[in-house]
Amino acid sequence: MATIKLKEISTLAPKDFDKEAIKEKTAGILEKLDDLQNLLYAESKHAVLVILQGMDASGKDGAIRKVFGAMNPQGVRVQSFKAPTPEELSHDFLWRIHAVAPPKGIIQLFNRSHYEDVLITRVHKIIDDKTAKIRMKAINDFEQLLQEHNSTTILKFYMHISPEEQKQRLQERISDPTKQWKYNERDFDEAKLWDDYMAAYEDCFEHCNDVPWTVVPADQNWYKEYIIASTLQKALEKLDMEYPGLKKS
Amino acid sequence: MATIKLKEISTLAPKDFDKEAIKEKTAGILEKLDDLQNLLYAESKHAVLVILQGMDASGKDGAIRKVFGAMNPQGVRVQSFKAPTPEELSHDFLWRIHAVAPPKGIIQLFNRSHYEDVLITRVHKIIDDKTAKIRMKAINDFEQLLQEHNSTTILKFYMHISPEEQKQRLQERISDPTKQWKYNERDFDEAKLWDDYMAAYEDCFEHCNDVPWTVVPADQNWYKEYIIASTLQKALEKLDMEYPGLKKS
Repeated sequence: MATIKLKEISTLAPKDFDKEAIKEKTAGILEKLDDLQNLLYAESKHAVLVILQGMDASGKDGAIRKVFGAMNPQGVRVQSFKAPTPEELSHDFLWRIHAVAPPKGIIQLFNRSHYEDVLITRVHKIIDDKTAKIRMKAINDFEQLLQEHNSTTILKFYMHISPEEQKQRLQERISDPTKQWKYNERDFDEAKLWDDYMAAYEDCFEHCNDVPWTVVPADQNWYKEYIIASTLQKALEKLDMEYPGLKKS
Repeated sequence: MATIKLKEISTLAPKDFDKEAIKEKTAGILEKLDDLQNLLYAESKHAVLVILQGMDASGKDGAIRKVFGAMNPQGVRVQSFKAPTPEELSHDFLWRIHAVAPPKGIIQLFNRSHYEDVLITRVHKIIDDKTAKIRMKAINDFEQLLQEHNSTTILKFYMHISPEEQKQRLQERISDPTKQWKYNERDFDEAKLWDDYMAAYEDCFEHCNDVPWTVVPADQNWYKEYIIASTLQKALEKLDMEYPGLKKS
């Protein structure tokens, strides 16, 4: 496949997309998603894993709230991955991930994921390129396991924002008292490593592409939500599910 | 305290409650709950545990969807407890419960709970009255532990429906193709044990009352949702939370 160059992809919606029209369309999709999730739960033949990746303030939390918040919380689980604990570090890097892989019937959301083990670790030179390559191979094998052995649909989203938009959002975290808790002094230091992060992401897109990535232009929340919701809708509809009849005894 | 006699409590809303007015009121409460949950998550000083109990088809799932579905799924977790697995049975009955107790910042919902270990087990004579009493003491101690040692607010709801309403809902599960998957042949056998269940519940209300129960008249969903949402709102407001300021380094 052609490699993805993030600099060549716009972080904005295409010019001919109308905000209000898209918001209305998204509202309709969210209603359909609610039904599809109920069907997924009822049928319990397929699992769904949604991976959200992106730089700080790229809108992962908002996407969870708006898109996944529209479905029944009984069938939607959210796992945020932070820096690994000492116990987690005493295992292979996929151990804590595998433990929360979705069972059939469930939509499991990862807010950050095993990809951090080839992103932040790589940018900060905690692992070298060779180790990154070996890990990416392990990630492909792991994702294949979930697909083939538990009928798991995997969707991977990269929230694509511009460094300017990020800077503005981080500033807002400092000035808005209801957002200060999200701010971390380290965030601006991380932002300085922008190009290194982009290179690491592009490497993920190239080498972990058995399950393809969706690059989501994410400077505008309404467009981001539309892309994620519609991608999820298409994936669920492809499963061709139906309500089970009465149980036979 | 005066013991609760379920037969003396109506399963309906008080006569002077207007459905449309209450629905509007509930919508307003749900918006406030969304803010309060965000604050709980941001502050991360308190945990919240919500226990939903009730007979089959008493509307637990609907309450989860409507009330708890209005909040950010990142901070709301739902755990449904089914018949224990062999591994779970090889531990004390609170082992699997403790494992999913809420951390600070999180609202954890139990769809059924440790109370099944003094309800279904007791009605089916898997445990005797003496064991039930001992377990209820252990439950009180456990709930106290969560309250005192992790600043956990515990809310316990009993969905109070009439046997007639239950029968109608179970019939609907048979005739509606989108609901047949919820139907279990055993449901009607369980319904025959109604009085035994009511006695077991009343015993719980009496002996596990350190954290008081809310008996929710649940024949009408709009009233049920209002009671749960407003009880949760009051409990969260009592925590007197505030957004943390900028982290000091």
